[in-house]
Amino acid sequence: MATLEFWYEFASTYSYLTVMRIEEQAQAAGVEIEWRPFLLGPIFKSQGWDTSPFNLFPAKGRYMVRDIERIAAARGLPFRMPPTFPVNGLNAARLALLGVSAGWCPAFTRSVFAAQFQRGEDISQPEVLVGILAELGVDPAQATAAACSNANKQALRLQTEIAMQRGIFGAPSFITSDGELFWGDDRLEQALAWARR
Amino acid sequence: MATLEFWYEFASTYSYLTVMRIEEQAQAAGVEIEWRPFLLGPIFKSQGWDTSPFNLFPAKGRYMVRDIERIAAARGLPFRMPPTFPVNGLNAARLALLGVSAGWCPAFTRSVFAAQFQRGEDISQPEVLVGILAELGVDPAQATAAACSNANKQALRLQTEIAMQRGIFGAPSFITSDGELFWGDDRLEQALAWARR
Repeated sequence: MATLEFWYEFASTYSYLTVMRIEEQAQAAGVEIEWRPFLLGPIFKSQGWDTSPFNLFPAKGRYMVRDIERIAAARGLPFRMPPTFPVNGLNAARLALLGVSAGWCPAFTRSVFAAQFQRGEDISQPEVLVGILAELGVDPAQATAAACSNANKQALRLQTEIAMQRGIFGAPSFITSDGELFWGDDRLEQALAWARR
Repeated sequence: MATLEFWYEFASTYSYLTVMRIEEQAQAAGVEIEWRPFLLGPIFKSQGWDTSPFNLFPAKGRYMVRDIERIAAARGLPFRMPPTFPVNGLNAARLALLGVSAGWCPAFTRSVFAAQFQRGEDISQPEVLVGILAELGVDPAQATAAACSNANKQALRLQTEIAMQRGIFGAPSFITSDGELFWGDDRLEQALAWARR
């Protein structure tokens, strides 16, 4: 079966758009998705940015909010900017990475994005993540301890380094098995088509 | 008839993609296009950039070239990056603005973009533009003199100021008669649909 890597960051608005539709689109295309949570912060820092481009470039930031509002409305998807943006997605990313091998990464990821961009919750807060884990039937204490283990912390750092080495500069990004990089929710269809070639 | 403003910059690769298809798409949608050449340079400067984001952010720049190559190939459109990028589009923009009232702006614009992104010509050079004008049956000496008149120079400065005031931060951009801004060749279909509502 064709596969497609899906690289996303929890503070990324456009990643929200993709998270909520990628499984359905991939299933229709006959492509298997490999979920790759990573951190954009270190990549932005390497190009001299200390926050999201939404904040660095106000006109572009305002536009992107409106762009996402229009796209979400057309898809019947709720969307609101959270009170704090960008939020620190470190805890969520560590848990999501742990969930990849455990099998609950996709459901966890969707719940975290819904909490942030539908209900305006602060997903940097451990109690928000604990609630989501519990709802998914994952032992929160055990998962949180494993997420904060040195091995898992190191795995997330490595994941982010791999992202940078492979030319990723934003999220969501998609990489096909032959190395083609696609960036943005609006390139999902192209990426899936390429993956199937 | 519904109208849509089309804001573009001659050094913009993604504007090339739009220039070569907007008339056909607009005709199919029953929307009239208002051609609005402007300069991105002053807008980039206002956010602290002294060149194209292609150059400022190398990973993103490499990606965007590949992205355009893929899209152009899918459309059967030739594309190559010119030897100098970004080129200074001032002379071309002044002429294009002049051509709006004279009626030859769309044809002139397509020829200039083809020269730059299909044949790798340096469109900052007056002789390249003179050749294009002559091919279109426009008197090059007369047009060049009118393009460099104080009135036309001032009109282009005003055009660029209007772009900034209306929240434009990149090209191509589209603005509907009710003020909705869309950015990017990949938003052309959305912009046309909005214009028709």
